[in-house]
Amino acid sequence: MSKMERPFDEELKSLKEMLLEMAARAEEQIALAVRALREREEPLACQVLDREEAINRLDVEVDQMCLRLLALRQPLATDLRFITAAMKIGTDLERIGDLAVNIAERTLDLLKSPELKPLIDIPRMAELAQDMVRDALNAFVQGDDALARDVCLRDDQVDQLNDQVFRELLTYMMQDPSTISRAVDLILVGRHLERIADHATNIGEDVIYMVKGKTIKHHIEEGRLTGLKGCPTD
Amino acid sequence: MSKMERPFDEELKSLKEMLLEMAARAEEQIALAVRALREREEPLACQVLDREEAINRLDVEVDQMCLRLLALRQPLATDLRFITAAMKIGTDLERIGDLAVNIAERTLDLLKSPELKPLIDIPRMAELAQDMVRDALNAFVQGDDALARDVCLRDDQVDQLNDQVFRELLTYMMQDPSTISRAVDLILVGRHLERIADHATNIGEDVIYMVKGKTIKHHIEEGRLTGLKGCPTD
Repeated sequence: MSKMERPFDEELKSLKEMLLEMAARAEEQIALAVRALREREEPLACQVLDREEAINRLDVEVDQMCLRLLALRQPLATDLRFITAAMKIGTDLERIGDLAVNIAERTLDLLKSPELKPLIDIPRMAELAQDMVRDALNAFVQGDDALARDVCLRDDQVDQLNDQVFRELLTYMMQDPSTISRAVDLILVGRHLERIADHATNIGEDVIYMVKGKTIKHHIEEGRLTGLKGCPTD
Repeated sequence: MSKMERPFDEELKSLKEMLLEMAARAEEQIALAVRALREREEPLACQVLDREEAINRLDVEVDQMCLRLLALRQPLATDLRFITAAMKIGTDLERIGDLAVNIAERTLDLLKSPELKPLIDIPRMAELAQDMVRDALNAFVQGDDALARDVCLRDDQVDQLNDQVFRELLTYMMQDPSTISRAVDLILVGRHLERIADHATNIGEDVIYMVKGKTIKHHIEEGRLTGLKGCPTD
C-alpha cells in the first residue's frame, strides 16, 4: 500500500521504468530468437520461450498500475494521455514478446533440417526492428515526438526488406522444392519481424498523440498501403 | 459540446454503440475479403480497401471519447475498467480491420493467377473468426464473462484449422512447384485469419478482466503454447 502514498511524479517515473524494462526485455528476446536462428543454437531458442513469462508479468503490472493511477490520481490532459499511452505501449510490447516467441518456435522447427542458406536480411530486419522498439520507448519517456515520427518512417525499410526476403525465398522454393518447408518457415520469421516493426510504429504513433494531442496514425498507415493495391479507385 | 453534458450512463451507452458498430464493420470486412477470395471477385476485394477508412475513423473517435470520459467523469472501479477495456477493444478491432485489408491485398494478388483449389477450410476459419468477434463484443456490452471465456476457448479451433491449411498447402507446393506463389499467399491468408481470432481472444480476455477484476490472459496464452515447443524444460 505504501506505493499508493508516493507522490504522483514518482509513480509516473516508476511506470516509465517498468515500460523501459519491458522494452529492454522485448528487444533482448528479438535478438536472442534471431541469434538462435542464425547460429542454429537450440538452447538460445529455448531461452526465449523461458523468458516470455517475465514480459507477460510486467504487462499485467503496467496495466494494474495505470488503472490505479487513473482511479487514485484522476489525471488530466498530459498526464492522462501519458497513462493511457502507457497502457497501449504495454500491450504492444507484450505482443512483441509473443512474436519473438513465434520466431523461436519457427527456429526450433528449422533446426530439425540442414541450413537453407546463411541469413543476412533477416538479422538486418531484426536489428532495425530492435532499434525501432528502443527508440520508440526513448521517444515515450522523453516525450520526443520528432524521434517518434522517425521511428514510424523507418517502418518502410523493414517492409522493403521483408518483401525482398519473401521474393528471394519464393525463388528458392521454385528452383528446389526440397527447400519449401524451410523457406516457408523463414517467410514467416520475416513476417513476424515485420509485425514487430509495426508494433514499434504503433508505439511511435501513440507517443505523437501523447505529445501533440492529435492523431496521425491512420495517415501514416494509408501512406504505407499506397502502391499495394490494384483497384480502380486508388 | 452538448455531448459532454449528457449523463454518464448515456455516454457509456454511446461508447458501447460505437464499438458495436466498429465490430459489425470489422466482421463485414472479414466476410467480404474472404468472399472476394472464394468467389474470385476483384471488386469485392477493392470494397474492403475502400471501407477501411471508416473503421479507422471510429477507432480514433472511441479513443477520444474514452479520454474525455476519463478526464471529465473520473470514473472508478467497474466504470474505469469498462472505459479502459473499451480503448483496448477499439485497438483490437482496428487491427482486425487491417488484417481484413491484408486478406484483400493477398486476394488481389491471387486473382492474377488461376484458382489453385476450391477453398473450404479458409472460409470455415473466417466464419469462426467472425463469430468470435461478434460474441466477444456481445460479451463486452453485456458484461458476460462466461461468453467471453467461451470465445477464448474457440481460438484453438481456428489454430487447428490454420495448421491444417498450412500442411495441405505445403503438400501442394511440394507436389507441384508451379503452385508455390499461390500457396504461400493462401498460407498468409490463413495466418491473417488466425491473428483475427487472436484479437477476438484478446477482447475476450479484456472482458473477463473487466467483469472479474482479475487477469486470465497469460494463463490462456500459456495453454495455447503447450505442445508447440521442443525444449527440455517444458
